[in-house]
Amino acid sequence: MCQLLGMNCNTPTDIVFSFEGFRRRGGLTDHHADGFGIGFFEGKGVRLFHDDKPSAHSPVADLIRAYQIKSENVIAHIRKATQGQTSLANTHPFMREMWGEYWLFAHNGHLKNYFPPAGEFYQAVGNTDSERAFCAILEQLRCRFTRKPDADTLFNAVAELTAEIRSYGLFNFMMSNGDCLFAHASTLLHYIVRKAPFGEAHLLDDDVKVDFAAVTTPNDKVVVIATLPLTGNEAWSQLAVNELVMFCDGDIVRRNRPEPPVYMGVEEGLAIARAAGVSV
Amino acid sequence: MCQLLGMNCNTPTDIVFSFEGFRRRGGLTDHHADGFGIGFFEGKGVRLFHDDKPSAHSPVADLIRAYQIKSENVIAHIRKATQGQTSLANTHPFMREMWGEYWLFAHNGHLKNYFPPAGEFYQAVGNTDSERAFCAILEQLRCRFTRKPDADTLFNAVAELTAEIRSYGLFNFMMSNGDCLFAHASTLLHYIVRKAPFGEAHLLDDDVKVDFAAVTTPNDKVVVIATLPLTGNEAWSQLAVNELVMFCDGDIVRRNRPEPPVYMGVEEGLAIARAAGVSV
Repeated sequence: MCQLLGMNCNTPTDIVFSFEGFRRRGGLTDHHADGFGIGFFEGKGVRLFHDDKPSAHSPVADLIRAYQIKSENVIAHIRKATQGQTSLANTHPFMREMWGEYWLFAHNGHLKNYFPPAGEFYQAVGNTDSERAFCAILEQLRCRFTRKPDADTLFNAVAELTAEIRSYGLFNFMMSNGDCLFAHASTLLHYIVRKAPFGEAHLLDDDVKVDFAAVTTPNDKVVVIATLPLTGNEAWSQLAVNELVMFCDGDIVRRNRPEPPVYMGVEEGLAIARAAGVSV
Repeated sequence: MCQLLGMNCNTPTDIVFSFEGFRRRGGLTDHHADGFGIGFFEGKGVRLFHDDKPSAHSPVADLIRAYQIKSENVIAHIRKATQGQTSLANTHPFMREMWGEYWLFAHNGHLKNYFPPAGEFYQAVGNTDSERAFCAILEQLRCRFTRKPDADTLFNAVAELTAEIRSYGLFNFMMSNGDCLFAHASTLLHYIVRKAPFGEAHLLDDDVKVDFAAVTTPNDKVVVIATLPLTGNEAWSQLAVNELVMFCDGDIVRRNRPEPPVYMGVEEGLAIARAAGVSV
């Protein structure tokens, strides 16, 4: 299973601390060693970094640490290829423009025999089920709405399309237009909302800690979303199975989950991924 | 005037030597100091680097030097903002997907009062005339051709659209889908074809030389395209005013130019750019 990392904030924030733990899973503390990608929104623009080197040893990842890019919305992905070659065209996150905005998308899972009809507006460049799913979501949204609809309408449409696509298999994903960030769990996706009073956090994958109180203001709100928790001394929440959440300004602003919610155990989630042929 | 740099080859080649001279024009030997961008095709995928720091001092540019990415098609741009703010969304090259391929575009010049109607397939995210022109070209191509047409038809269509758009002002641009590279000159655009027997080249902007014979094979063909020549001891060719060229595998494969061709002097080209409010 590949791993996902996302961030959504109410003020531009650097993701270096979380990314440091996350990137070590690409080749050091875990074996997601077939490249990685990360996209940062900066206003309406996007900085996108892709690399086919393992994130733990990538010069691009070193740059991200050194540069401390501040962003309100970030999506990152480390890849363990289970099928198909490792190529730049297959590296997440994928980007397209819709309604005059850039959209980023990253996926972890596997959609079996998922070949939606070729879109009129969006076509996949590579050959992953992930990019096909992203293009299908955008295609349907763009066909339904010539202009960007209000947030409720958009959220409901994404929820409906997500439910359709997850019938093909595992569909953990994140998607953002630089304004809000959608996160959906088929199996494992965790998040933490950091806000005042800020405390200290310890990375699970590295002997590193940070005192957020020293680097934030009292109004800051930051959500970090990851396949598995990144820190050991904070209380991470989990998305329920088949739950879709819309984050905005560091808060959950909309959610759609089955009642009663079912939360998947980490071991079970990893076993399901393994059984689906998604490496873990 | 911003400056353009492009490369088109028959084998993946690193652009580090040319980029070294070019980047120094972003803040050291010249004053195009409002950010830069560079896109590398790698197969069907693209590595895209944008930075709002001057290229001469950018850590992203340092990474490009250190990493020596090999590519068959590269487009780079350094920017001197003359109007509008410097923002990531306004940083060239711009990228869109068309016909299941990524397309990159960078522009140097100024299109006066150029506001084409909003496209159905492509919309600008930032507020530059350049991105609007790119979106208009893609929009028209996509409207005319549901699938990618043959190379002659594509070239003729691009030539026609280019002629339309250049009636609005200065329109030096490069555009590539990772297979071929289009270059068009309103004023200044130079190129050099390097092939066997390879010689030595000296950068104009830096005390650096390279012996291409040592880093190539006899079959390599590499075209480098730049606003102004980058080396002092090689014979650069110039695109004629209003000439459109399609490069493929390091060769000119199609060209469209007025007869007799008119070649603009460097001083005249810079003066025209100045008069049009494009910084030089």
